[in-house]
Amino acid sequence: MTDTESNGRAESTVHPETPAGTANIGVVGMAVMGSNLARNLAGREGNTVAVYNRSSGRTRALVREHPEACFLASESVDDFVASLARPRTAIIMVQAGRGTDAVIEQLAERFEPGDIIVDGGNANFHDTIRRERDLREQGLNFVGAGISGGEEGALRGPSIMPGGSAEAWETLGPILKSIAAVAEGEPCVTHVGTDGAGHFVKMVHNGIEYADMQLIAESYDLLRRVGGHGVDELVQIFERWNEGDLESYLIEITGEVLKQRDAGTGKPLVDVIRDEAGSKGTGVWTVQNAVGLGIPVSGIGEAVFARAVSSNATQRAAVHRSVQSRPEIAQVPDTFADDVRAALYASKVVAYAQGFDLVIAGAREYGWDIDLGNLAKIWRGGCIIRAQFLNRVAEAYAENPELESLLVDPYFANAVAEGEAAWRRIVGIAAASGIPAPGFSSALSYYDALASTRLPAALIQGQRDFFGAHTYQRIDKDGTFHTLWSDDARREVEQEPSTR
Amino acid sequence: MTDTESNGRAESTVHPETPAGTANIGVVGMAVMGSNLARNLAGREGNTVAVYNRSSGRTRALVREHPEACFLASESVDDFVASLARPRTAIIMVQAGRGTDAVIEQLAERFEPGDIIVDGGNANFHDTIRRERDLREQGLNFVGAGISGGEEGALRGPSIMPGGSAEAWETLGPILKSIAAVAEGEPCVTHVGTDGAGHFVKMVHNGIEYADMQLIAESYDLLRRVGGHGVDELVQIFERWNEGDLESYLIEITGEVLKQRDAGTGKPLVDVIRDEAGSKGTGVWTVQNAVGLGIPVSGIGEAVFARAVSSNATQRAAVHRSVQSRPEIAQVPDTFADDVRAALYASKVVAYAQGFDLVIAGAREYGWDIDLGNLAKIWRGGCIIRAQFLNRVAEAYAENPELESLLVDPYFANAVAEGEAAWRRIVGIAAASGIPAPGFSSALSYYDALASTRLPAALIQGQRDFFGAHTYQRIDKDGTFHTLWSDDARREVEQEPSTR
Repeated sequence: MTDTESNGRAESTVHPETPAGTANIGVVGMAVMGSNLARNLAGREGNTVAVYNRSSGRTRALVREHPEACFLASESVDDFVASLARPRTAIIMVQAGRGTDAVIEQLAERFEPGDIIVDGGNANFHDTIRRERDLREQGLNFVGAGISGGEEGALRGPSIMPGGSAEAWETLGPILKSIAAVAEGEPCVTHVGTDGAGHFVKMVHNGIEYADMQLIAESYDLLRRVGGHGVDELVQIFERWNEGDLESYLIEITGEVLKQRDAGTGKPLVDVIRDEAGSKGTGVWTVQNAVGLGIPVSGIGEAVFARAVSSNATQRAAVHRSVQSRPEIAQVPDTFADDVRAALYASKVVAYAQGFDLVIAGAREYGWDIDLGNLAKIWRGGCIIRAQFLNRVAEAYAENPELESLLVDPYFANAVAEGEAAWRRIVGIAAASGIPAPGFSSALSYYDALASTRLPAALIQGQRDFFGAHTYQRIDKDGTFHTLWSDDARREVEQEPSTR
Repeated sequence: MTDTESNGRAESTVHPETPAGTANIGVVGMAVMGSNLARNLAGREGNTVAVYNRSSGRTRALVREHPEACFLASESVDDFVASLARPRTAIIMVQAGRGTDAVIEQLAERFEPGDIIVDGGNANFHDTIRRERDLREQGLNFVGAGISGGEEGALRGPSIMPGGSAEAWETLGPILKSIAAVAEGEPCVTHVGTDGAGHFVKMVHNGIEYADMQLIAESYDLLRRVGGHGVDELVQIFERWNEGDLESYLIEITGEVLKQRDAGTGKPLVDVIRDEAGSKGTGVWTVQNAVGLGIPVSGIGEAVFARAVSSNATQRAAVHRSVQSRPEIAQVPDTFADDVRAALYASKVVAYAQGFDLVIAGAREYGWDIDLGNLAKIWRGGCIIRAQFLNRVAEAYAENPELESLLVDPYFANAVAEGEAAWRRIVGIAAASGIPAPGFSSALSYYDALASTRLPAALIQGQRDFFGAHTYQRIDKDGTFHTLWSDDARREVEQEPSTR
């Protein structure tokens, strides 16, 4: 980028006579997400879009390649700000972190009370809460908006999850509705909640995406290594699955990825890709925040762990060398693929149940009023986890906003019950055959724990009281108790409430 | 505590004529852990122990009840500091967090260069790093020391994990060695590493403790609900297990807890304890730091998640109500308990392998030189996870300090191979019978992932490149690649290194 940057300095400005104050929306950051979002905005009636990038080479290229967009392009922050109509509204599309803080500072110095700064990057919601508070003190509106859908989504219609104030939403709502994906006639954007609510739910969206991808990967692995299906058969299986209740973007692209042949070797591309999965932070954040809030997101956790295992090539090679023998692959009937499908669906219900529980816990912790049905609706289109499935989730929360778990909703309870036997078989077969299925098996354990009348957590409480005097509660009376374990009399004493 | 506090103010001092500068060690905080540690110190030859508590009622009670300890008790921080010989050395035993900061500030104002402040609480190691840095600037030695063993351990000999400077260790080492537990003739204390290293490994110790307890809980649950063993039989089984390679404090106390009858009802106490397991932060910290460092601690993760599931009574009740039927419990042969034992042992190896990987990652990230063999040795006695097992771990790292995983060590590789078939059977039986076994099954999945030649992570990389242009690597050539998926030609392009 150094060359374009020096070119940028050579010329004085992109649009020497930028008409002042005429753009209803501006975009800062002309990397692919930002320029695609700017083009999306420019293509909607009523929008005049100001654009700015630190190095003007990118801006100039965009303007040159897309004259139809009629961008108001600026080469300095001053010109950019001057090109915006009031209330000035600018969407920042730069790398999350310090870059975002730098741009916010530049805009905040020039913006006036009532103006709106939107961060459309993948910010950590804790940063968003801090930034919103700081800017509110200056009278500025700061909106952290999660944007999902990748490059294509930014251009053609993403799912947008804005937080921030109701005041900002008044101005921003119509603009964002104009560019969002549309699912069943409704734009995939809603005012999620105040301050960091938007980036929080975007984080959870990405966490669910991790879980979803892990479950699909386990399905693929089992179908291939146990079911013995070739890649061409797998393409057909995923295409078939995409016509049923698993219909979703991720199932669809799984078929696409498996279809792809490597030009050089003629092999399926998936067989020449190194099997080390990377990650970019939001999955990790989801797990960190979930455990902090006491929400068991085991589906997301196992997905994050599985990627970590895969990417440690040295350790994998060492363990692989030291393992003396591998179990025989189980013999399975022709209905195996149907069993895998059922296990995938049931495990997916668990992953979403856990993800929505995390949204509920976040809303409670940070004081957000999040409509779970609306959240499910804006995930139906544009974003990576878009799926028919989310219609069912939306219905479940519309039916009962106080639902204790998605697993309790009659539709999902029934769906899981239907697939339950197959789910159990698949976990058993994976264990017997040596195929890792952490997503399937942890989802089943989660379900079985919730469904159990008694859990061995009682033993854990006994142990904790034994070694740490942590006390316990009883099933038959209120209060907090401690057993004098080391005493010969082995008595139980009721603790005074004040001591704990 | 208000009453003792006002009493404290009423009298002028505990020891009106405290001899100045004669105590080689002081303890601040006279709650049960602090007073037990002070008594432990006072009982060792050569130690003169100064004690101080914010409210002097507790100090006075301790001095009255334990005249044999010859404590130098003070009622003000000034007197306490004056009672210490140089270099002044004080161990803080107060609740982690702000309380610790307050005491540190009081001592730091009065201490002089070369003096030593030890935090023996369960501090977050990030706080310890910060505190050490701040106090070092004042010329003071700050040592974050993890202390494990609960109240009994503090009194009779805990496992102690000090961080901080080598200079501080020179003074502190002999004192801590005098009070630590002894395992096979060696004191359970070592200089773990600089600044926060001690509290970091204490955190990991507690994380492993979570995993260990969860695995024992799953064993108990399976033995009872599938094996059909009554509580009296379970006591015998755990006592038998404690004589073999599972010999450990946690197995031992499991037998003790199961032995306990409820005085009121005559039932086994474990059956009247509410089955909702609490937690106190270190398990959560372990998971948060592990995922941040990219270390898959699925055993600890599932243990933390399982406690969270257990403690959500409302959700459990709702799911339990909505579940239509439960699977039949599998029929198992008489050898079932042996299978469970094998599954427990293999899963435990995994949990420790993951925990030690986290120590390695922490050492790398924070620049600590941690001797893993010595760490395993100081966990052999005093602490909650103390076990014969840790002798094997110490031997493994003594044999090969660069071990890629505990699973690679010949002893453990062999042990896991021996139990492997039983482990697989148990995971299958749990899945079929509806008994949650998240610890057993995630450990098996972890092992199978490491042992697999190819992982479906390749598919995940393909998906990520498809929707987010995240790029991938190939098995057959170096470089970073991106497929132009949306292009009709579907070409693959090599990415310039600079673009990522």
